[in-house]
Amino acid sequence: MTAFAQSRNTIHLPKGFSFSAATAGIKASGRLDLALIEAVSGTTAAALFTRNLVVAAPVEVGRVNLAKGKGRVRAIIVNSGNANCATGKAGLKACRQVCQEVAGELGIRPEEVFPSSTGIIGVPLPAEKIVAKLPELIGNREPTPVMFDRFTQAIMTTDTHQKWASSQFRAGFSEVSLLGVAKGSGMIHPQLATMLVYLLTDVAATPAELKRLLSDACDQSFNCISVDGDSSTNDTVLLMASGQSGIRLRDAAVREKFATALSTVCQSLAEQIVSDGEGVQHVIRLSIEQVGTRQEALQVARTIAHSLLVKTAWAGADPNWGRILAAVGRSGVVLDPKRIDIYIANQMVCKGGAGCNFDEARAHQDLAQPSCKVRVRLGRGRSRVEFITSDLTAEYVQINADYST
Amino acid sequence: MTAFAQSRNTIHLPKGFSFSAATAGIKASGRLDLALIEAVSGTTAAALFTRNLVVAAPVEVGRVNLAKGKGRVRAIIVNSGNANCATGKAGLKACRQVCQEVAGELGIRPEEVFPSSTGIIGVPLPAEKIVAKLPELIGNREPTPVMFDRFTQAIMTTDTHQKWASSQFRAGFSEVSLLGVAKGSGMIHPQLATMLVYLLTDVAATPAELKRLLSDACDQSFNCISVDGDSSTNDTVLLMASGQSGIRLRDAAVREKFATALSTVCQSLAEQIVSDGEGVQHVIRLSIEQVGTRQEALQVARTIAHSLLVKTAWAGADPNWGRILAAVGRSGVVLDPKRIDIYIANQMVCKGGAGCNFDEARAHQDLAQPSCKVRVRLGRGRSRVEFITSDLTAEYVQINADYST
Repeated sequence: MTAFAQSRNTIHLPKGFSFSAATAGIKASGRLDLALIEAVSGTTAAALFTRNLVVAAPVEVGRVNLAKGKGRVRAIIVNSGNANCATGKAGLKACRQVCQEVAGELGIRPEEVFPSSTGIIGVPLPAEKIVAKLPELIGNREPTPVMFDRFTQAIMTTDTHQKWASSQFRAGFSEVSLLGVAKGSGMIHPQLATMLVYLLTDVAATPAELKRLLSDACDQSFNCISVDGDSSTNDTVLLMASGQSGIRLRDAAVREKFATALSTVCQSLAEQIVSDGEGVQHVIRLSIEQVGTRQEALQVARTIAHSLLVKTAWAGADPNWGRILAAVGRSGVVLDPKRIDIYIANQMVCKGGAGCNFDEARAHQDLAQPSCKVRVRLGRGRSRVEFITSDLTAEYVQINADYST
Repeated sequence: MTAFAQSRNTIHLPKGFSFSAATAGIKASGRLDLALIEAVSGTTAAALFTRNLVVAAPVEVGRVNLAKGKGRVRAIIVNSGNANCATGKAGLKACRQVCQEVAGELGIRPEEVFPSSTGIIGVPLPAEKIVAKLPELIGNREPTPVMFDRFTQAIMTTDTHQKWASSQFRAGFSEVSLLGVAKGSGMIHPQLATMLVYLLTDVAATPAELKRLLSDACDQSFNCISVDGDSSTNDTVLLMASGQSGIRLRDAAVREKFATALSTVCQSLAEQIVSDGEGVQHVIRLSIEQVGTRQEALQVARTIAHSLLVKTAWAGADPNWGRILAAVGRSGVVLDPKRIDIYIANQMVCKGGAGCNFDEARAHQDLAQPSCKVRVRLGRGRSRVEFITSDLTAEYVQINADYST
């Protein structure tokens, strides 16, 4: 996990952002459940949302606000403990009310507020609890690592640890900082949902420039991970640029460096999300190679990553290549089974679609590591994809089946 | 489970078929692992195979034999304990050798022998063990319920009980019998695979007539079930008609009665397969209603049935309609979330895409039954589909993750 280690060495706080967190009593546990990021005037933004057709109120409102505000965002308001999803018109009203109140307190326009919610589906959002806490939340905001740390805590639900990654690069006489924070592990806890990712930078960029870079970075990171294959109703990735470094993204050399930094931070966050998946004991780095198109490679990767038989075999560190082969065969991608090779770590375990001699004990040991690479070569093209996924353990089922009325 | 009970009252042995079983030593347990059905001359057949592109040797050979023999089949030879899959050219050779030897012993042509294998993937088939047992296997064949019972045992792998269903109807002065036998629960055991279904009748029919009826019956049964979403490399459904009842399928009234009988037997077998799924505690009868097309309804059903979050909620008898709603939203079917209603047993739990008041304790109780109905209405058409699936329990994971070198 090189990217992970590198990007977690230091928090590089981008200029132009303040953070805050508070306890509004939405979580029954009494933990931090309300969080704010305020950005300076002139901050631009771009976002990507869940492709699920069932979306939570904050996703609907966030989309509208971004469009109305022409990609200008001044504040992010997040609550955890309640997803404000499947809550009908009352949910939309509650979300708009929160944005209105935040705007009033900060002296900005409501469409400059970007809302997020994560937690239980189908329970009315207690907007009054949030509104009552806003003066305290906003009064405490600070552009400091300590307050950023509290922010990362306040957006957690079933996460077992805070997730952030940071990067910095030199451009001329100035430095550009990038800081990303995330919560979630796919939809994996009873009635709790959502991956939320906020990426903050002090580079100067237009919303359109941000959107393009964000799409590319997400394609290589958040769109290449899977814990359980369920996409949430609230998934959101937001990139905000304050411009306070004085460095413009328009410059090709800056753009290239920024794209690399963004990619590194996103991949680190994506990896942290998979590693923190409920019950995950083994992270598997799938590499699907020699495929016709990237789309086909992704299709194969997802079929393997979502196969219960493959995932349970990984839980037992079982080098059962037959299950992987069978998953490839039903992926829907046209292929010749006789050209499929499969590797576990550095060992070939299946050659030309049939078994080959390999050291089974060693393959078992490799799969028993916290992270192991599995390569599948289709022998029919030059496209490839790297995809991070996990095993499926009995613990996952127990957590998700645990229900009491 | 009405169909199940009705169709398991009596074994109606169709005329023209003999059964046998033997222990060839392929299964380490020393249980029955070799099985034969012999059919009289003139028997016609039609088959459906797995859509997986990775197919086992017997599926390749079976397809070729059916085509070569122009839909005439005189014998089924099945071994359990070894799937003869991903075994390369040697696997094909072993399979053809077994067919050849069976044909020699019975005095028929090799292409009139239909082979099946089920068990471990990637291990060479010990053809010599099978060949050595053929004289005994063939010598013991009998057209009796006792030998049929042994046949149903010999094709089992991880099945916990034998699966069969039977039906009979009157046509003129004669009776037509239908007897079906199955093994499997999707691909759910370490290195073991496959659903095998053999349907035997004494009606007189052409292979083309059989093929049409078989496709329809499978669409409503085996194509509407899912335990874990993994389709095997060996899945096979074979329908054989001996013609010994003297009743012809060409007659429209007979065809209608036969279609109903076939449908009943297939649905019963499909249900038995789901109920016997590893670790299954709750069978869920999904009903997807008010959809544009049957294909879309199936797409929604499969997305729900394959969702880990939904399946684990069912394991805990958790009436978590939010997870079902989220699965519908990511199914890929264009829909208006505001028109989705969800029922658990007889209670509406989600109305117009939002939560509604319901008796949660009662919904929990309903889901705690061995079988429970879950209805999803999309409010956008007149198509519907019934789909049988199951919960996902920690036991399933334990069984499938259990590995020892």
